[in-house]
Amino acid sequence: MSNKLPGALFVIGLGPGDAALVTPEVTAALARCTDVFGYFPYVARVPERPGLMRHASDNREEIARAQAALACAAAGGQVAVVSGGDPGVFAMASAVFEAIEHGPAAWQALDIQVLPGISAMLAAAARVGAPLGHDFAVVSLSDNLKPWELVLHRLRAAASAGFALALYNPISRARPWQLGAALTALRDILPLETPVIFASAVTRPDERIEILTLAEAAAEPDRADMRTMVLIGTAETRRIARGDGLSDWVYAPRSAGPRSTGPRSAGARPA
Amino acid sequence: MSNKLPGALFVIGLGPGDAALVTPEVTAALARCTDVFGYFPYVARVPERPGLMRHASDNREEIARAQAALACAAAGGQVAVVSGGDPGVFAMASAVFEAIEHGPAAWQALDIQVLPGISAMLAAAARVGAPLGHDFAVVSLSDNLKPWELVLHRLRAAASAGFALALYNPISRARPWQLGAALTALRDILPLETPVIFASAVTRPDERIEILTLAEAAAEPDRADMRTMVLIGTAETRRIARGDGLSDWVYAPRSAGPRSTGPRSAGARPA
Repeated sequence: MSNKLPGALFVIGLGPGDAALVTPEVTAALARCTDVFGYFPYVARVPERPGLMRHASDNREEIARAQAALACAAAGGQVAVVSGGDPGVFAMASAVFEAIEHGPAAWQALDIQVLPGISAMLAAAARVGAPLGHDFAVVSLSDNLKPWELVLHRLRAAASAGFALALYNPISRARPWQLGAALTALRDILPLETPVIFASAVTRPDERIEILTLAEAAAEPDRADMRTMVLIGTAETRRIARGDGLSDWVYAPRSAGPRSTGPRSAGARPA
Repeated sequence: MSNKLPGALFVIGLGPGDAALVTPEVTAALARCTDVFGYFPYVARVPERPGLMRHASDNREEIARAQAALACAAAGGQVAVVSGGDPGVFAMASAVFEAIEHGPAAWQALDIQVLPGISAMLAAAARVGAPLGHDFAVVSLSDNLKPWELVLHRLRAAASAGFALALYNPISRARPWQLGAALTALRDILPLETPVIFASAVTRPDERIEILTLAEAAAEPDRADMRTMVLIGTAETRRIARGDGLSDWVYAPRSAGPRSTGPRSAGARPA
């Protein structure tokens, strides 16, 4: 780490995986950094070069990682904290600001920039069409940091109100049943043929994308894994044949009418 | 337009404005296109060059624009349809697939790719910290294509369930009262001090970002305009002083507990 002051901290989104989806802003910031902190597979995506120290850690170490990065920047480092996708969506940005709020005053004085990245949900959506093209909600299925009943409550509230859904952290070895439970709960609210997309390793060599119905997905949630983004449509979501004859496009129509699950009185105006 | 077959259609996200946020994938696609279609200010962001025909149109012409682009691709053109931000978030991707579903069969056989962009909401969020760092919902306030009561219903449902909110299309000359009505409705659900961000022209030379309370925002919705992204926190959103002493950071904590507006029974497990 450099000993020149003042240090700086970049909270960086690397996008879903393909180098062609890394923004020039991020590439430029990484080129001037002295230290990069992050979860092993994300740090591995930052090219090695002389003068760059790589600090990789496990994925349950967010606050400790944020603290180490802030301490490094406070000591004069030009520091990057890297996340896959966008750093502000279930990723390191919240952990960094949480560490700042509860850390030494010197950390609050640091030059900090959050550099957005192509989010996993929008990269996945692009692969199948425009399933998030109208109102949608984004939910983490992890119950490590919130009660499971709250996760279910939010899923039910959003689906009942006609939001499409993007689910992060759908499944892991430590949380094997949550995705199945979520899809089963949604089966009571949405039509059984509602499109559900399991998009794994999007834009990476082992990308795998499946378009299922809600009934199919609820019956086989194990088709998803830790690297899967789950997108769920609404009663209005459309599924049409693709030119290749092999797959489909899925999109949200631009209009939502009284057919949706919302109230049926149209045209009301506020007082 | 080229007469060589087969044509192709790229549905492209140009990001929020800064050229450093355009992905290399998008830059490469634009370099091989013969025709670019879009709303005037977005088409203006695509560099002119010999061999590229620019087709700019008004912002209420989405379906006609999509049809013109598809016809151009069907005739052998290498065609880009450009949106600001991400093309799959209240932008051209839905319009393109809607036009395909209801158009001639030849359009369904076209080679189509959706290329994601940095969305306006995530660029705005990055500027102020991590206000969308936990569960959030994305809502268009436009009642051109859905009843206003449905917009309100979705806002209330999402805020009541503890989602942060990202609001697109908050205000325009034709829709002057909707943002004020939305914020007034949310004042009945969220604490008056809930952070509200008005982020205008994000990453552009005239960028203007204000962090308000919900009470302040509801009292002065006219501080927003057509180019404003509105982000609304939750009862748990944190606001902390920034190092420059002039502004604040806003972030969503990673944990959500029984303090949230969801149900209070923690730890329940599915049968």
